[in-house]
Amino acid sequence: MIDVKEAALGQRYCAVRDFTRHLCQPLATEDYVVQTMADCSPTKWHLGHTTWFFETFLLAPNLTAFAPIDTRYGYMFNSYYEAIGERQPRPNRGFMSRPTVEEVFQYRAYVDRWMTTLLGDGQASQLESLLVLGINHEQQHQELLLTDIKHVFWCNPMRPAYGAKDVPRAAAIRPLRWLEYEGGVLSIGHDGQGFAFDNEGPRHQQLLQPFRLASRLVTNREFLEFMEDGGYQRPELWLSAGWTTIQEQGWSAPLYWEKFGGKWWNMTLAGPREVDENEPVCHVSYFEADAYAHWRGTRLPTEAEWEVAAEALPVEGNFVENGYLHPCPASGDGLTQMYGDVWEWTRSSYSPYPGFRPAEGAVGEYNGKFMCNQYVLRGGSCATARRHIRSTYRNFFAPEARWQFTGIRLAADA
Amino acid sequence: MIDVKEAALGQRYCAVRDFTRHLCQPLATEDYVVQTMADCSPTKWHLGHTTWFFETFLLAPNLTAFAPIDTRYGYMFNSYYEAIGERQPRPNRGFMSRPTVEEVFQYRAYVDRWMTTLLGDGQASQLESLLVLGINHEQQHQELLLTDIKHVFWCNPMRPAYGAKDVPRAAAIRPLRWLEYEGGVLSIGHDGQGFAFDNEGPRHQQLLQPFRLASRLVTNREFLEFMEDGGYQRPELWLSAGWTTIQEQGWSAPLYWEKFGGKWWNMTLAGPREVDENEPVCHVSYFEADAYAHWRGTRLPTEAEWEVAAEALPVEGNFVENGYLHPCPASGDGLTQMYGDVWEWTRSSYSPYPGFRPAEGAVGEYNGKFMCNQYVLRGGSCATARRHIRSTYRNFFAPEARWQFTGIRLAADA
Amino acid sequence: MIDVKEAALGQRYCAVRDFTRHLCQPLATEDYVVQTMADCSPTKWHLGHTTWFFETFLLAPNLTAFAPIDTRYGYMFNSYYEAIGERQPRPNRGFMSRPTVEEVFQYRAYVDRWMTTLLGDGQASQLESLLVLGINHEQQHQELLLTDIKHVFWCNPMRPAYGAKDVPRAAAIRPLRWLEYEGGVLSIGHDGQGFAFDNEGPRHQQLLQPFRLASRLVTNREFLEFMEDGGYQRPELWLSAGWTTIQEQGWSAPLYWEKFGGKWWNMTLAGPREVDENEPVCHVSYFEADAYAHWRGTRLPTEAEWEVAAEALPVEGNFVENGYLHPCPASGDGLTQMYGDVWEWTRSSYSPYPGFRPAEGAVGEYNGKFMCNQYVLRGGSCATARRHIRSTYRNFFAPEARWQFTGIRLAADA
Amino acid sequence: MIDVKEAALGQRYCAVRDFTRHLCQPLATEDYVVQTMADCSPTKWHLGHTTWFFETFLLAPNLTAFAPIDTRYGYMFNSYYEAIGERQPRPNRGFMSRPTVEEVFQYRAYVDRWMTTLLGDGQASQLESLLVLGINHEQQHQELLLTDIKHVFWCNPMRPAYGAKDVPRAAAIRPLRWLEYEGGVLSIGHDGQGFAFDNEGPRHQQLLQPFRLASRLVTNREFLEFMEDGGYQRPELWLSAGWTTIQEQGWSAPLYWEKFGGKWWNMTLAGPREVDENEPVCHVSYFEADAYAHWRGTRLPTEAEWEVAAEALPVEGNFVENGYLHPCPASGDGLTQMYGDVWEWTRSSYSPYPGFRPAEGAVGEYNGKFMCNQYVLRGGSCATARRHIRSTYRNFFAPEARWQFTGIRLAADA
Repeated sequence: MIDVKEAALGQRYCAVRDFTRHLCQPLATEDYVVQTMADCSPTKWHLGHTTWFFETFLLAPNLTAFAPIDTRYGYMFNSYYEAIGERQPRPNRGFMSRPTVEEVFQYRAYVDRWMTTLLGDGQASQLESLLVLGINHEQQHQELLLTDIKHVFWCNPMRPAYGAKDVPRAAAIRPLRWLEYEGGVLSIGHDGQGFAFDNEGPRHQQLLQPFRLASRLVTNREFLEFMEDGGYQRPELWLSAGWTTIQEQGWSAPLYWEKFGGKWWNMTLAGPREVDENEPVCHVSYFEADAYAHWRGTRLPTEAEWEVAAEALPVEGNFVENGYLHPCPASGDGLTQMYGDVWEWTRSSYSPYPGFRPAEGAVGEYNGKFMCNQYVLRGGSCATARRHIRSTYRNFFAPEARWQFTGIRLAADA
Repeated sequence: MIDVKEAALGQRYCAVRDFTRHLCQPLATEDYVVQTMADCSPTKWHLGHTTWFFETFLLAPNLTAFAPIDTRYGYMFNSYYEAIGERQPRPNRGFMSRPTVEEVFQYRAYVDRWMTTLLGDGQASQLESLLVLGINHEQQHQELLLTDIKHVFWCNPMRPAYGAKDVPRAAAIRPLRWLEYEGGVLSIGHDGQGFAFDNEGPRHQQLLQPFRLASRLVTNREFLEFMEDGGYQRPELWLSAGWTTIQEQGWSAPLYWEKFGGKWWNMTLAGPREVDENEPVCHVSYFEADAYAHWRGTRLPTEAEWEVAAEALPVEGNFVENGYLHPCPASGDGLTQMYGDVWEWTRSSYSPYPGFRPAEGAVGEYNGKFMCNQYVLRGGSCATARRHIRSTYRNFFAPEARWQFTGIRLAADA
Repeated sequence: MIDVKEAALGQRYCAVRDFTRHLCQPLATEDYVVQTMADCSPTKWHLGHTTWFFETFLLAPNLTAFAPIDTRYGYMFNSYYEAIGERQPRPNRGFMSRPTVEEVFQYRAYVDRWMTTLLGDGQASQLESLLVLGINHEQQHQELLLTDIKHVFWCNPMRPAYGAKDVPRAAAIRPLRWLEYEGGVLSIGHDGQGFAFDNEGPRHQQLLQPFRLASRLVTNREFLEFMEDGGYQRPELWLSAGWTTIQEQGWSAPLYWEKFGGKWWNMTLAGPREVDENEPVCHVSYFEADAYAHWRGTRLPTEAEWEVAAEALPVEGNFVENGYLHPCPASGDGLTQMYGDVWEWTRSSYSPYPGFRPAEGAVGEYNGKFMCNQYVLRGGSCATARRHIRSTYRNFFAPEARWQFTGIRLAADA
Repeated sequence: MIDVKEAALGQRYCAVRDFTRHLCQPLATEDYVVQTMADCSPTKWHLGHTTWFFETFLLAPNLTAFAPIDTRYGYMFNSYYEAIGERQPRPNRGFMSRPTVEEVFQYRAYVDRWMTTLLGDGQASQLESLLVLGINHEQQHQELLLTDIKHVFWCNPMRPAYGAKDVPRAAAIRPLRWLEYEGGVLSIGHDGQGFAFDNEGPRHQQLLQPFRLASRLVTNREFLEFMEDGGYQRPELWLSAGWTTIQEQGWSAPLYWEKFGGKWWNMTLAGPREVDENEPVCHVSYFEADAYAHWRGTRLPTEAEWEVAAEALPVEGNFVENGYLHPCPASGDGLTQMYGDVWEWTRSSYSPYPGFRPAEGAVGEYNGKFMCNQYVLRGGSCATARRHIRSTYRNFFAPEARWQFTGIRLAADA
């Protein structure tokens, strides 16, 4: 007899696996193969890697009858787990035309069948934490699948569209307002109730000075003002590493922006569109977020400031389930757009919380070893699953990364 | 009424286009997309580029009714013709998941239909030279398609097989003999009868000293002796640039060789096989060919020596039509293996013949502009079409290139 | 009449300028010219750049009679001040054989004479903050001059010695003990009394959990245990970026270590010496410090932890004035070696304190713009001037930097 | 008793060693140390390396009493002789501040004293070939010393002058005329009478078609016409590798040219000067020479064409002994400027003559191993010693090299 909790876990497993398949619907076979930069992975690799995760961390150690469908997949679909062994070099993931897309889906089905066995085995409860980790891991790769295929289509002179619902346009949006926060000795971090990644804990106290937070994200119109004021040409606005980056890369606008006929267009998953000035600016690096804040005489929030403000809010927003796959203009009162739309850069370097200990074994490589030269982002994006995000969630990217749905919320000292 | 010559041209056109399709039979859709290094192109790109050639140089200038199926293909499928305009950067050809394979085949069919119109138009004769150039161009890309997909499969940890007929094994082969040539003031180069690339002419005289040529290609066994004698560790055997290359690249065997369980295996289009000692050594660079010759106390032939010796022979050998797609052991008497099997490195830098003039316009970019830092290879390979090759044919690659079917014939002063 | 304060300032100016000259005594003319990597600068450049600082920020704006000795020096000796204008690219500072060493000393003397005028002018007080900034800036470059020339001598196959006093050897040193700290809401940062760099303020409160600090630095013996335990071969001990770095760079020991005849030697400013196991380990990167701490089951301190512990101690230690130019074995009770010997890596990313604002104008480029992808180091080293350091001092380097005198103090949660 | 020939050899040795010292007169100590690119070496290194040559190939094998002044110099001053052992990496020659310039001159004096012993020993005759090789080797490095220091001064924002005599200006020069040559089966290469480098032989016959040679070098005026006609912007004029090079390097004029106030200046060893339109164009790469010839509808000569034309002329011209260190305007009738002024690019790849065999042992590494991806230059330059050059002399550089005194003579088919 399968108990209720196990059934629920099994359902969540199936649902998340189905959603991955759903996200692949618009793709041609050819689209699954391409890798356009080391940071991006082919769709096919995402499909295989998430499957390999369940195989390696759940099936292999817990089902003696289990045998891999192909032992070489371990090499091909390991991402960065040193404890598991050698792997295909990251920049060469796009070299692997085989297994074919169909074979990868067979691999998924094979592992799914074995997972059903495992979950029906009365073992689900004791494997719950790993299973939920695997589910969340797959959700992360769903978002990456979307951001990576966006980059693939951007690198194609034909600018193909993945396909997405029309983003609602706003005639106008409210002016940005400043919301006040008192600060004090406050707790942040995950308290261990329900799932969280190891990097979200332990919950601990921090001392915050009084601060202010912008009521909404910075819009394209506001960012265009920065551009028109010579923002990309004024070294005094930039971190030294940022100035070097924009010089070397020749950046003069957010990623995915192009000028045609005197007007700015940006690439979306629905194809190229004229830039909508009311939408949140998106696909900016930490460097650009920081320079913009500098230009405005403000700053980015710390992750603790963001979290204490977000904690009070329901986890609602423009997530992947909406199907827009693009940030929407702000609406509503008070503190808006904290969840969904775009990941919000914080000024906090990604570092361990006091008392942080990574898990033992290979899954301990999940987060801790990346705590260097990256910045924390908060709140999820229009490509994040709603159930995946929470106020304590810490995403992280290098300061030059732009291919994620990343945007800007301003903060200031009170 | 279509005259005989036009019909023959039309048939040749169809035959070569069909053969390209035939070569694609063993491939999965995913295989068409991948690019593993800048020198290689995706299969899909070869299919598109050869089609673009006919579209650009034959249809567009000669058929006013013709309209391109997609104007963006010009950007995507131009290889290096500066006169035609901007193009997709070579190392990024593998970024283009679209057009899909099916769409590329539609593009081919579309151009083929218009070509039928053009060829049926009574224009074939006057366009003959461009048409035959396009046919030969497509044959060149047929060979590249095979060498490039071999590299793709090599870069895949699964080492997939393209599929090829079993290469006949030889119990033993004859010892290498030296054939004597008198030299003198001799003519080389193409005389203008029938098709040749511009770089093969004009026919002109050269003064050759008496020389000797090896009766067959260097075998794997002979090359293993070089390796076992420390060939890859002895700088005195190598050109300075060659020594630097093998150090930087970590070369200690020909490309596609791997050691398993104490034995050498090499990758073939039929998959990995144990190295057959009687086969010609293949996938060696000019540097390795030169070092081997040095070690043997001999040298590589000049292209003129090669040509005057080959001129007397019928164009017969192990070509792509055989379906082995791999060099075969030598058999027969006299001067063997001159055509087919492997391209033979000569010691001749690729430079213009006396009186050489490239054609006017874009097709003039075909050969002349590459006459720098490359070496001439002669004779065709097991991936070359039999009708494509002749004694005057000059192929050329950079001295470090190894992914073509390239091997070694020794020469010596008399 | 010159007042007392001005006289004191003038004396400090002269003293620091003299000390720079003193540090150059052991050098041959040739030694002044060489640059061995982009991070290092030639001695001559340090001499010119510190002089340019006084010229640009004090003389030019405040003495109308002042004219530069050579207007081209502005281009040659600007380091990174965008507001001042174009400059010699950093990696090419070693290309400038001219001005000669003698001319650079003439430049120094010229600026010193004008500075005497300026300081005698009754203006010293109002320029005090810039003057003291210039003095501290020169002290920073005195340390860099030493670390950079050490690298120059290391890159020389002859391993020349700069010359330094013999470091006292210790028969044995005390075992490492753990000192307990209570934490709480504590203040760190500079309070504005006396000189500090802008990045040291404002003073502010932080909440610290109880923690422990090691009584002394990690020694070479202790670091050798890490090495012998396979520390450099075990990916689980390293940050991901650290593991990549040691693979790419081939690191298997601290910088300046070499093995001869089965024994480890390290390069010092007195030339190569056998590694003394009682000395603090030195010339390790953040990556190595972090991996070592990880291996020991501990961690590095935060900069706040370090500062609250250091605040109570007198600023005493093994500084540049000692003349050892090398870290010494620990001696004494309690918390030792906090100042001098080696800069201590903290786990704190270099970021602005709450309320931090860079100064207006070019000097505002001093610190803030580097607050990205660097880690804070504390306490000064054997190459730091004693008067230069204080408990609030924040040094910062990229996590892979090793050519500074950098070492390891362990911390732990209470 | 020393015989006449030995005395003469000794005198030549002393004279060449003295002339090296003479060339160093204008240099400051700092100038000896700098290396601005891998192709260039520091003056100090040239001084040491030429000395090491005599030490290694003459003293060490032939004088049992000889002991090196410093055994580490072998590592530091070996250029590329694999047979001799490990050496300082070429790009890092500028890292070696020690030995000091004075110590290097002491090294020279030490070796010179031992050479006097050796030459007085009655051994000079039997060592003649190596001795003369060493003398010629030193002459080659005299030229490199000048071209390399010119690059050092160019990389210095102060553009210092080495110092040279004023180049005579010409009011006007004669128009370029075409001289006719019959061709035929002709001999080129050195016949073994007197010294020559191994690559100049063996003398052998070549078949030459009738050809024409320009009566003088291409001038700056003529090259400016090419520039003004968009020469650097027209891909159809360039070799593919050349076009890539000028794009990547951003070339739009010869090396050492700068535009100030609407006028072209070029850097000379006497400092920057306005470009003199009557002087031969200088510091152009093979790519530029080839593109220029292409633009003019002509071509570069083969090395055989150059040699048969030069053979009849006396070895006279603007050599290093003149002290101009810069090419001069053409004067005189007939075929002028064949010797001296600038090295003339030929269209001949640098390859072995029929029957070429490098010498046994380390000196065999002198020339042969560089016969790949380089082009032959002929005739010497204003920085070449007059006694160093002859009609058979083959210099060689990569097609992108520009820092030598290299220029253009046109040729054409008859």
